Amino acid sequence: MIKTDILIIGAGPTGLFTVFEAGLLKLKTHLIDALPQPGGQCSEIYPKKPIYDIPGFPEILAGDLVNNLMEQIKPFEPGFTLGERAETIEKLEDDTFLVTTNKGTKHNAPVVAIAGGLGSFEPRKPPIPNIIDFEDKGVAYIIRDPEVYRDKRVVIAGGGDSALDWTIFLADVASEVTLVHRRNEFRGALDSVERVAELTKLGKVNLITEAEVKELKGDDHVTGVGIKHKTEGDIHVDTDYFIPLFGLSPKLGPIGNWGLEIEKNAIKVDNSYDYQTNIPGIYAIGDVNTYKGKLKLILSGFHEAAIMCQSAYQRIFPDKKYVMKYTTVGGVEGFDGSKKEAKKEVVKAIV
Amino acid sequence: MIKTDILIIGAGPTGLFTVFEAGLLKLKTHLIDALPQPGGQCSEIYPKKPIYDIPGFPEILAGDLVNNLMEQIKPFEPGFTLGERAETIEKLEDDTFLVTTNKGTKHNAPVVAIAGGLGSFEPRKPPIPNIIDFEDKGVAYIIRDPEVYRDKRVVIAGGGDSALDWTIFLADVASEVTLVHRRNEFRGALDSVERVAELTKLGKVNLITEAEVKELKGDDHVTGVGIKHKTEGDIHVDTDYFIPLFGLSPKLGPIGNWGLEIEKNAIKVDNSYDYQTNIPGIYAIGDVNTYKGKLKLILSGFHEAAIMCQSAYQRIFPDKKYVMKYTTVGGVEGFDGSKKEAKKEVVKAIV
Repeated sequence: MIKTDILIIGAGPTGLFTVFEAGLLKLKTHLIDALPQPGGQCSEIYPKKPIYDIPGFPEILAGDLVNNLMEQIKPFEPGFTLGERAETIEKLEDDTFLVTTNKGTKHNAPVVAIAGGLGSFEPRKPPIPNIIDFEDKGVAYIIRDPEVYRDKRVVIAGGGDSALDWTIFLADVASEVTLVHRRNEFRGALDSVERVAELTKLGKVNLITEAEVKELKGDDHVTGVGIKHKTEGDIHVDTDYFIPLFGLSPKLGPIGNWGLEIEKNAIKVDNSYDYQTNIPGIYAIGDVNTYKGKLKLILSGFHEAAIMCQSAYQRIFPDKKYVMKYTTVGGVEGFDGSKKEAKKEVVKAIV
Repeated sequence: MIKTDILIIGAGPTGLFTVFEAGLLKLKTHLIDALPQPGGQCSEIYPKKPIYDIPGFPEILAGDLVNNLMEQIKPFEPGFTLGERAETIEKLEDDTFLVTTNKGTKHNAPVVAIAGGLGSFEPRKPPIPNIIDFEDKGVAYIIRDPEVYRDKRVVIAGGGDSALDWTIFLADVASEVTLVHRRNEFRGALDSVERVAELTKLGKVNLITEAEVKELKGDDHVTGVGIKHKTEGDIHVDTDYFIPLFGLSPKLGPIGNWGLEIEKNAIKVDNSYDYQTNIPGIYAIGDVNTYKGKLKLILSGFHEAAIMCQSAYQRIFPDKKYVMKYTTVGGVEGFDGSKKEAKKEVVKAIV
């Protein structure tokens, strides 16, 4: 069992900065995230896109913001449970919380901070009746290890960057790659579109456009797909794998069943004080929360994290009074023994 | 008369970032600050000190943060009234505000955002009965133009960096420099303390420690000071100028008389919604405001500015509905015709 002071659900920018604010108060933190790396959307969806509204950065790539935050929180040695989704929460007799992931990892803390962003990103699934039966039996929505497809036949569906990039990549790995898209136009980086056109000419990619996969064939594994073409009618393609890449869609997920007050797919919090939810000890910060006038901005998550940590401190140490010291005055003392501080003035006698 | 959409009182980090958030909503801004340059405390008091708790910056010098913010807001061409203190506010018949500075400059806007930090920084004055009579007649608390003191006799009082630095500087400018401090120990950068000790040995500075200036002499201009020495009794020093450098102390100042609800020397605001004060149309953001759980952190000022601008927009355009667009999606369009935006995806047909 992992024990910590503040258990943070979600390792996006808000969750990461919570580590820093908690650390200044000498509170330990541990983060859970369904994605395999920290950074949330910034790392998974748009690492190379510039953000212009982070105060003090006229422009910063989302991925660089995450890297900077990781460096900023390093002295506070946060723990990470990555690639697992927080599934259930239970209040124990000692007034602490037990959070268990979909893989059974257990976490215990007196305070839970939900910094879940728009939720966990789940793949959009095409409306093929028996697709769920073939999940992990030839159907994959996310490519985790491309080696699985070496010398196999693969059908990819989609018209965006993911579909284009994986088509290009797997053209050299799989024995046969078919890309199915319902339009002639693709939406993605120009060089990716051009590369797929080239691979198609070379016969290394089998491109079927204005068509949709409508049927999956096979017994305990996919053996083929049925495709409906706009003008040519039904087409059958033999394949070992079907990989629909229609993007990720955020879902609040299991957190929606934790007994928290939900409004417009977000968690209601008390913004007049400490961003606590209707369950004492559980806070919600960043894009996952809602209140009157809420702005889903990264900079708001930062502020909410700072405020929330002060309240968490009071919950954990009801008898202690914390006196805030500015980092410029008090410096930053890491749990790893590191210490950053401004050069102090000296006091020296002249006479 | 200067006219704008949001008149910002205070050009510290919070005031500066307000320009950006207002600009995204196409609102024009103008800033008033008593200091001669933007940046507030960060520029005036600790430009060379590192700050560690600005999200995304593991470390940034206060002066660099101000420079970055100035670059970030440049596209929105804010106006500045610097070196003047906002003195009076008046509500006009058209429901807008008229703010006049101590130098008589008039500003008109439908929304006023007070981002006044800890207030205007005013010099700490030593308790010498008639000191006020000699202000601008030989007594100065801030050195604006050192050339004023060329070939004159100067008495400086104080034991910190300002007193040390100006003693060193004026030793080459003034005909005679006396430094008076009530202790033998000085508090400042080590090399400054050592330089003053050296100048004293060389006879270029007349150092009187364990002593305090208690009396000012002269008719319409200072001609000398009376000093009380701990062991040697009274000392008289002839001088043309007396410059007490005992630091700056923040004062809420005239804003305190604007009819705003004040609590603990700060302005009460509605943090459950939009950081508006008890006077509709006047907001208070950053260190100058107070509410339950308030943290006087720069990052909180940033969040408060963003929220406040949304409410200001509603006040200025009650019939328009603003739909927020992320800068990553919509880019940033400056009033100067500049446009920053993320590289767009292309849509291109392959077949």
